[in-house]
Amino acid sequence: MGTVALLQDADLSPEAAAVFAEIRALRGTDYVNNFWRALAHDPAGLRAVWDRLKVVMAPGALDPLVKEMLYVAVSTANGCGYCIHSHTAAAKAKGMTTEQHAELLAVVGMAMQTNGLVQGLGVEVDAVFKA
Amino acid sequence: MGTVALLQDADLSPEAAAVFAEIRALRGTDYVNNFWRALAHDPAGLRAVWDRLKVVMAPGALDPLVKEMLYVAVSTANGCGYCIHSHTAAAKAKGMTTEQHAELLAVVGMAMQTNGLVQGLGVEVDAVFKA
Amino acid sequence: MGTVALLQDADLSPEAAAVFAEIRALRGTDYVNNFWRALAHDPAGLRAVWDRLKVVMAPGALDPLVKEMLYVAVSTANGCGYCIHSHTAAAKAKGMTTEQHAELLAVVGMAMQTNGLVQGLGVEVDAVFKA
Amino acid sequence: MGTVALLQDADLSPEAAAVFAEIRALRGTDYVNNFWRALAHDPAGLRAVWDRLKVVMAPGALDPLVKEMLYVAVSTANGCGYCIHSHTAAAKAKGMTTEQHAELLAVVGMAMQTNGLVQGLGVEVDAVFKA
Amino acid sequence: MGTVALLQDADLSPEAAAVFAEIRALRGTDYVNNFWRALAHDPAGLRAVWDRLKVVMAPGALDPLVKEMLYVAVSTANGCGYCIHSHTAAAKAKGMTTEQHAELLAVVGMAMQTNGLVQGLGVEVDAVFKA
Amino acid sequence: MGTVALLQDADLSPEAAAVFAEIRALRGTDYVNNFWRALAHDPAGLRAVWDRLKVVMAPGALDPLVKEMLYVAVSTANGCGYCIHSHTAAAKAKGMTTEQHAELLAVVGMAMQTNGLVQGLGVEVDAVFKA
Repeated sequence: MGTVALLQDADLSPEAAAVFAEIRALRGTDYVNNFWRALAHDPAGLRAVWDRLKVVMAPGALDPLVKEMLYVAVSTANGCGYCIHSHTAAAKAKGMTTEQHAELLAVVGMAMQTNGLVQGLGVEVDAVFKA
Repeated sequence: MGTVALLQDADLSPEAAAVFAEIRALRGTDYVNNFWRALAHDPAGLRAVWDRLKVVMAPGALDPLVKEMLYVAVSTANGCGYCIHSHTAAAKAKGMTTEQHAELLAVVGMAMQTNGLVQGLGVEVDAVFKA
Repeated sequence: MGTVALLQDADLSPEAAAVFAEIRALRGTDYVNNFWRALAHDPAGLRAVWDRLKVVMAPGALDPLVKEMLYVAVSTANGCGYCIHSHTAAAKAKGMTTEQHAELLAVVGMAMQTNGLVQGLGVEVDAVFKA
Repeated sequence: MGTVALLQDADLSPEAAAVFAEIRALRGTDYVNNFWRALAHDPAGLRAVWDRLKVVMAPGALDPLVKEMLYVAVSTANGCGYCIHSHTAAAKAKGMTTEQHAELLAVVGMAMQTNGLVQGLGVEVDAVFKA
Repeated sequence: MGTVALLQDADLSPEAAAVFAEIRALRGTDYVNNFWRALAHDPAGLRAVWDRLKVVMAPGALDPLVKEMLYVAVSTANGCGYCIHSHTAAAKAKGMTTEQHAELLAVVGMAMQTNGLVQGLGVEVDAVFKA
Repeated sequence: MGTVALLQDADLSPEAAAVFAEIRALRGTDYVNNFWRALAHDPAGLRAVWDRLKVVMAPGALDPLVKEMLYVAVSTANGCGYCIHSHTAAAKAKGMTTEQHAELLAVVGMAMQTNGLVQGLGVEVDAVFKA
């Protein structure tokens, strides 16, 4: 019921079907969520987003759970309800506890509050904070 | 040069001075950054923000470095330049490496991109993502 | 089910009814969408928005389809679901193809990503970019 | 040094000059701030914004100071530094006290915080809140 | 159906139950809205938000109705549908008339428009606007 | 003076230098703007953004000037000053006239205004607008 229909498996182009197969394999589940079904109208875009997402969210200098929480933080500031739900679910699947979730939201709320205060006060960046 | 003057130590009310003393003690430095100097016109607000910030950013279920990175993520999505600079500096002070900083920004960029795609596609939340 | 009731035709003030008549005439359809029905509680505001919208969205140095796509782009960055849906529908009615829609969203997503990276990096404007 | 040059009085089209004359007359000062000088490249847009702004910000069911504070609140949430500065100055010119400014910012900060919490928690609107 | 379940009274910790009792007493109603039921998973956060909210929204240099309208303005700019609905309802309960609501939204719309114009034009802050 | 230093050519890793060479070749100028110099601390991220940007902004179903204007629209809604400046300059370089720039900003301002009104009114999406 969005601005495009959600594509079912039978509707996919071969390029999109190949991405869906990778999503299923990497995640170990047959379920492919609505975002990918909406994006599949643009197989090249689907491929580009999926390929980059895999790399960005993979273990690296930051662990995958921290990355999911960062994703939730950005999505919350942007008010993207779908993104908040999907990445909160992903964070829980990667082990986020109730306490961690509460602290994540407390930091987000605190950051939102001081963002507003700083902007309203028009505070200039301290020279010591510049690289 | 913002919407209020930055208060110097000599201008502080006793209540604001007490908060500045706590900031200096907790951080182990005499330097008090511009945000607190702008906020000090409202000593009760200064006290409330500082008291809550200390609790929210303290070690808990999430470590303080992760919390600073979440703060940067929210501030980036909100486009609060001051907040980005001050919390990036704080994250570096808590040990954020160049690689971690790069991954943090990569996740933020990825989240911004998919936030835009999801909103533009009008994707409805999958039932499996709801608590 | 919003913060105000949607006014039905029988509920309109004469000033609001006159605007509805213009909307119907210009668009060649009897259907008046929810935005105007919610805004009709403020007939002067309704008139002002409609009069300006007609001018801004009319053919000019930019063609109306490009203007609708710009509208979708802004609404997406702001996360206004209603606006995204209504202006995506308007763009389709003005001939936006599936390929154009996909490219529109790809640009939006790319812009969101680099907006986040630029803000997080705190990049200063190059002198050559200033008018 | 923005994306367009700031027009000086000698550069104005007759239509833009007429708007500048009205701004000076209504405000009782010769000073015309940068926003109008940037917008003056588009005389029809300048006229439309000025004409609507006069009406919206005039005394009505809300007093002009309250309207200026609402303007600051929106501009703060949007992170528009210019708008925050100009409308904070306007609010001060209309009598906003230091205490009122502090309370304005405290409400803005509180709203930002709970906006973040509500979005992060994905709270659905209570039926009792719908009109 | 959000990212956490809404806690019913029987599920509350003693700390959360104490906050709910205060909410009911201060508001003179047994109804506790969804935000608090979602936040109650984090009793310390619930307590902190409620304690600060009471102070910030209490009568002071600004009257409580003005504060509710400022809350609506921020929430609208942030696109937080829940917050818009709950604080619009609160403003109505504190006496906001239909005319005041219309003017509030007109100011919000005007501010959004000039925020966009100012940002797009890249206007620099006039020296006279700096404190 | 951002959160990372701007890398000069002599500081680049071989991977980053290869991307800079491509930027110079495609654009036909030796000038590489600050964004890329800030991003070059993360050669893999630099490569990924550049590779995707080239594809997304290339001629397709939409012409490159329209794409630059869409980029400006998103960046304006997000308040990313750097992005507004750089993509407005790019749009001018691709032939955007003064009149087109004025209309672009007028549409952005209009969209911002109705985004605010729609959100404040809590308007639900008309069934006819859903795909």
